[in-house]
Amino acid sequence: MVGGGDGAFIGGVHRIALRLDGHYELVAGCFSSKYDNSKETGRKLGLSEERIYETYQEMAEKESRLSDGIDVVSIVTPNHLHVPVAKIFAEKGINIICDKPLALSSIEANSLKDIVENKKLIFALTHNYTGYPMVRHARSLIKNGDLGSLRVIQAEYPQDWLTTKAEDTGLKQAEWRTDPKRSGGGGCIGDIGTHAFNLIKFITQLELDELSADIHTFVKGRKLDDNAQIMLRFKDGAKGSIWSSQVAVGNENNLKIRVYGESGGLEWRQEDPNYLFYTKYGRPTQKITRGSGNAVKEANDVTRIPPGHPEGYLEGFANIYSDVSKVLFAKINKENYEQSNDCYPTIYDGIEGMKFIETVLESSNNNSKWIRFNYK
Amino acid sequence: MVGGGDGAFIGGVHRIALRLDGHYELVAGCFSSKYDNSKETGRKLGLSEERIYETYQEMAEKESRLSDGIDVVSIVTPNHLHVPVAKIFAEKGINIICDKPLALSSIEANSLKDIVENKKLIFALTHNYTGYPMVRHARSLIKNGDLGSLRVIQAEYPQDWLTTKAEDTGLKQAEWRTDPKRSGGGGCIGDIGTHAFNLIKFITQLELDELSADIHTFVKGRKLDDNAQIMLRFKDGAKGSIWSSQVAVGNENNLKIRVYGESGGLEWRQEDPNYLFYTKYGRPTQKITRGSGNAVKEANDVTRIPPGHPEGYLEGFANIYSDVSKVLFAKINKENYEQSNDCYPTIYDGIEGMKFIETVLESSNNNSKWIRFNYK
Amino acid sequence: MVGGGDGAFIGGVHRIALRLDGHYELVAGCFSSKYDNSKETGRKLGLSEERIYETYQEMAEKESRLSDGIDVVSIVTPNHLHVPVAKIFAEKGINIICDKPLALSSIEANSLKDIVENKKLIFALTHNYTGYPMVRHARSLIKNGDLGSLRVIQAEYPQDWLTTKAEDTGLKQAEWRTDPKRSGGGGCIGDIGTHAFNLIKFITQLELDELSADIHTFVKGRKLDDNAQIMLRFKDGAKGSIWSSQVAVGNENNLKIRVYGESGGLEWRQEDPNYLFYTKYGRPTQKITRGSGNAVKEANDVTRIPPGHPEGYLEGFANIYSDVSKVLFAKINKENYEQSNDCYPTIYDGIEGMKFIETVLESSNNNSKWIRFNYK
Amino acid sequence: MVGGGDGAFIGGVHRIALRLDGHYELVAGCFSSKYDNSKETGRKLGLSEERIYETYQEMAEKESRLSDGIDVVSIVTPNHLHVPVAKIFAEKGINIICDKPLALSSIEANSLKDIVENKKLIFALTHNYTGYPMVRHARSLIKNGDLGSLRVIQAEYPQDWLTTKAEDTGLKQAEWRTDPKRSGGGGCIGDIGTHAFNLIKFITQLELDELSADIHTFVKGRKLDDNAQIMLRFKDGAKGSIWSSQVAVGNENNLKIRVYGESGGLEWRQEDPNYLFYTKYGRPTQKITRGSGNAVKEANDVTRIPPGHPEGYLEGFANIYSDVSKVLFAKINKENYEQSNDCYPTIYDGIEGMKFIETVLESSNNNSKWIRFNYK
Repeated sequence: MVGGGDGAFIGGVHRIALRLDGHYELVAGCFSSKYDNSKETGRKLGLSEERIYETYQEMAEKESRLSDGIDVVSIVTPNHLHVPVAKIFAEKGINIICDKPLALSSIEANSLKDIVENKKLIFALTHNYTGYPMVRHARSLIKNGDLGSLRVIQAEYPQDWLTTKAEDTGLKQAEWRTDPKRSGGGGCIGDIGTHAFNLIKFITQLELDELSADIHTFVKGRKLDDNAQIMLRFKDGAKGSIWSSQVAVGNENNLKIRVYGESGGLEWRQEDPNYLFYTKYGRPTQKITRGSGNAVKEANDVTRIPPGHPEGYLEGFANIYSDVSKVLFAKINKENYEQSNDCYPTIYDGIEGMKFIETVLESSNNNSKWIRFNYK
Repeated sequence: MVGGGDGAFIGGVHRIALRLDGHYELVAGCFSSKYDNSKETGRKLGLSEERIYETYQEMAEKESRLSDGIDVVSIVTPNHLHVPVAKIFAEKGINIICDKPLALSSIEANSLKDIVENKKLIFALTHNYTGYPMVRHARSLIKNGDLGSLRVIQAEYPQDWLTTKAEDTGLKQAEWRTDPKRSGGGGCIGDIGTHAFNLIKFITQLELDELSADIHTFVKGRKLDDNAQIMLRFKDGAKGSIWSSQVAVGNENNLKIRVYGESGGLEWRQEDPNYLFYTKYGRPTQKITRGSGNAVKEANDVTRIPPGHPEGYLEGFANIYSDVSKVLFAKINKENYEQSNDCYPTIYDGIEGMKFIETVLESSNNNSKWIRFNYK
Repeated sequence: MVGGGDGAFIGGVHRIALRLDGHYELVAGCFSSKYDNSKETGRKLGLSEERIYETYQEMAEKESRLSDGIDVVSIVTPNHLHVPVAKIFAEKGINIICDKPLALSSIEANSLKDIVENKKLIFALTHNYTGYPMVRHARSLIKNGDLGSLRVIQAEYPQDWLTTKAEDTGLKQAEWRTDPKRSGGGGCIGDIGTHAFNLIKFITQLELDELSADIHTFVKGRKLDDNAQIMLRFKDGAKGSIWSSQVAVGNENNLKIRVYGESGGLEWRQEDPNYLFYTKYGRPTQKITRGSGNAVKEANDVTRIPPGHPEGYLEGFANIYSDVSKVLFAKINKENYEQSNDCYPTIYDGIEGMKFIETVLESSNNNSKWIRFNYK
Repeated sequence: MVGGGDGAFIGGVHRIALRLDGHYELVAGCFSSKYDNSKETGRKLGLSEERIYETYQEMAEKESRLSDGIDVVSIVTPNHLHVPVAKIFAEKGINIICDKPLALSSIEANSLKDIVENKKLIFALTHNYTGYPMVRHARSLIKNGDLGSLRVIQAEYPQDWLTTKAEDTGLKQAEWRTDPKRSGGGGCIGDIGTHAFNLIKFITQLELDELSADIHTFVKGRKLDDNAQIMLRFKDGAKGSIWSSQVAVGNENNLKIRVYGESGGLEWRQEDPNYLFYTKYGRPTQKITRGSGNAVKEANDVTRIPPGHPEGYLEGFANIYSDVSKVLFAKINKENYEQSNDCYPTIYDGIEGMKFIETVLESSNNNSKWIRFNYK
């Protein structure tokens, strides 16, 4: 693991996610640019001293030469380090699980893509919300045509933790997430808007055609956007919108997606993730529960416990790790495997995320002009 | 009453609303362009034969000359007749309660305004959702500064009853609401989008600066829009959006408004109208209940029964009627009164509604260009 | 109307209920034992002076001799006057709509029954919760066998308005409801427990076999129970419980019933009355909405407006009045009619309610011994 | 670990719980009475062959002699083996984490207690629901007096998975849970009623004085109860009830507790565990969220991720394991520690659970007579 030292949030999440199903063992790390912090973190995690590294370069170098070196590295640094770190490990042929967003720009992201492709690496991006079982169920319903041709997709991700200028209070999370140097050009659109965008893609499989955006920074002196309104047009004629905000008082991580088609509609909410509300037109809305006989195989495959015993964010996160583990295991054992974006988000999702941020910025900078979305 | 014969929906609602608090008595009507339908309806309502009229012109003429003629007429026809009917009664000096939207265009609406002003009439438009007690509470919170300076307003009004081509099945409601001749240029933006717009204005008192819209008709052969995405910019820097749809499967009348300010947020939903969810930043979300000691006076003034015994749509509608009755009573008794838009929506709200529809159409016809909103 | 003067609550509810659908006109009243209060109330309601009476005896006497005297009297006094007032009107042959609970004892209730039967009067008791459309839907599901043979019925009615000693603060509602002389031997079991009991009977049609109760008074100095736990055994082997409380902080009128059978279950809650949650065993829970195509005829017959526009307590109450009006109309017009407890609660429900209170008291006084319930 | 082989449910849960926070490593096991099953399970879990044992006796014997033998054993067998297995390990001085209910009888449970006390062992019983952060918050509120003196406690645990005779379909879970030989005398009262009982104790710290129960078996041929109504009287005058059922169609694991005191009330539901609803009398109900600044220290101490990212059942379960790990660590390191039931349920909770089952059975067998509850 690179990143995730004392004071970080997402590193701890990745560690739980990798432990949860017992498919991974954390054996080496460079947890912080400060060696002391890194050593302290590694020691608490029970790592042997010699595999707690001072720099990630050293870690990549040494681990790649160990006979039992790491099979995969988790990169959980602030955004600006994702690609630099990933390149070093990629060049050593080490597979990668990377936090999102992938990079500071699509150009940077593409430069990494080439190495990953050349080295035939497994590269997973933790758009973790796609790991929730009922998100898988939603995708399955749409694939099966249960909603008919899609018409309207409404996604939103409101939070409120940046309502005041938290970045001036010493809160590390707020500091780097509002700093363009470490986060890139997107504030809330990068941090959470990309999750909404990725979730739409994952569930509906629709291709975005163009978007019109109006982003704004409400908190004085903040350098990046903290609210975004985005209208969407999809290639097959469907319409939609994304609203993401970090100043919506009373919202914690209220990611929600609603999809409406010719013959059905569905609704899923991250804060109540064990349920999917599905309506066949003209029939009563159904509450489909994770783990039940009414959930589809794709959902139950990533479920651990019976319905009514809630699974949450960590389990969804762990599902991404466990999906990756299957492909990793096959690769290590030289079995046939295919790196598919079907089971976990890949570098291509990461590049799309960067394109999303850039397209939003371009539209917003041009007074919400519709901008064509270029996936490549 | 003009309109509201057999097969109509909203006429029956107005009749319950006027009866509910005992402030009105229905004594005369022209319920349909078909005299037989009108007579049958009037008879069922217990009207005396001579006050069931064949034409609304006759009704205005005769009632204005009776010593105990009507004090106010309710106009509940399809949209295209609102202004023609209103003008006839207005010219006879009869006060008016009119269903929304007010007219087919802002020009037509303005032509009525002149008569209403000249005759010093009471003119109320039934944007009934403003009658809900907890909507009044929400407005009061904002007026009192409990949310601080406002930042983001998210309103939506999804329905699903036009998911299929209901206008071809003989359903009268669907027929005239999708017919530009009878409904004007707005489909779902006129029918329900104006409600969302009016509710934002009522609750926040913000002035809209400009809007960018993308409206669409999903059902083939339908003549008016059945889905609309609208981005909003308000004069003081607040941002927002309206989504209205009549093809969102699983939604009945799911009007919802969320308002976020510097120090608080609130959420209200029409389908669960007895509760307002209010969050002071950093504190737990509170569920404020209609009729309780925690509701403000403006809310409890329009409340009939204790908390926990739900009031609904008809009570909210009746609140508009009862608010108007106070002003009517004062006028009839030659007491001082002021026609204020504080207690019920007036012709000015009606004109704004028409401007809203026209601005949305102009923006959408210009590929979602931001169009300045002109209240006058 | 007898009762319902200034300071009363339920009288106003009855008046709205009778007005709402336009089937009744309030023409005479004796609203208070204090003539001034009565006159003031009558005047506000627009009654003619000569039909505002000083005593209910006078009212019964005079109205029964008028050619256009009242067809039915609404009795909305405190409980101890229900039967004395009803007897006077019954003896004059005037039909009766009476608030609940019917009497102070089953003996008193039975004495009224004889007169009502002899005079062949229409007698309705306003167990208003049976008027909710989705309660009718629930009953219909069970009648149709959609739940299979019934097993478990859980009903509860918690409130919190008597958490402190409100009867000492001048609140009239609290005064007479906690006074055995005016309310009878039951406190919360009489005021709200009987509603829960009646609702079980109405929805399930099960006959209670025996009950075991533990009632308690938490507020010091209060004379009647403010909390009751009751276990139920029904004649066909079903089991159940009722919990009613007036000291459950955070509950307003949280009446709820859940019914479970061999093949299905359902849940309905008074504070969210437009929805019925129904589960066929092994299938997703369905949310059935009032007014929709998924609601049964019995439900939609007592529905005024489309789904998504909530109806509430007053509409449910008005449904009882409107159900009674059909029978009244038939009687007045000498058409065939049958006084059936199918469409509204009758004097027999009132007697059962008294038996319920008495059986609960007997069991609780005998340390929760199971006591057989005698419907006669 | 003893138990938890192929086909078991709770073993997998314990394994995730022990892994989640990284405080435990699973190194030895006897997962099934069938050695093949055990070996297969152990192999999948990556155990070394020599520490997969044929019998638990062998495991206790050998592990106790290894220098790096297990510090603690998890017992996740069907109920009838809990005590026999625990005794073997206890006698070898090995600490124990045991699934609930503890035993087949309180006598059996007490016999184990003596050994545990003599050997000064750490013994934890996985009444996992006490591990939920908002359960800890609820307990803290009550301890702090925020509800005032307690009055009413309503707990319920309805499920529906035994609505039909699942034990005849080959479902192992259903087989042993309905078999008196393997489960003891309690069916749903043992399996889930004890959870409700334990949760009441944990949250309120009230001592039960006496109970009156009516248990029943609805499914023909089933040997143990599948529904239970229980009335409760607590030592300080509070009243309450427990309803547990396995035939309540539409309920999955709908454990819920409501506590009402003189000045406040609270409600918590296992299926939506990240929220606690708290009402100060006369004030709006507050939704307190796990992980937020409004949650107390005791709650946030067992929280991993920010509010709005749900934690669930596995995290609650892991909290029990992690609480135990602190005491284990202290013991192993010979630091001072105290085995307190403050942080996790102990053998004394297990004995109380057995007493609860026995008292319920005694009452129900005596036609719901009130039976004094004897904690000793």
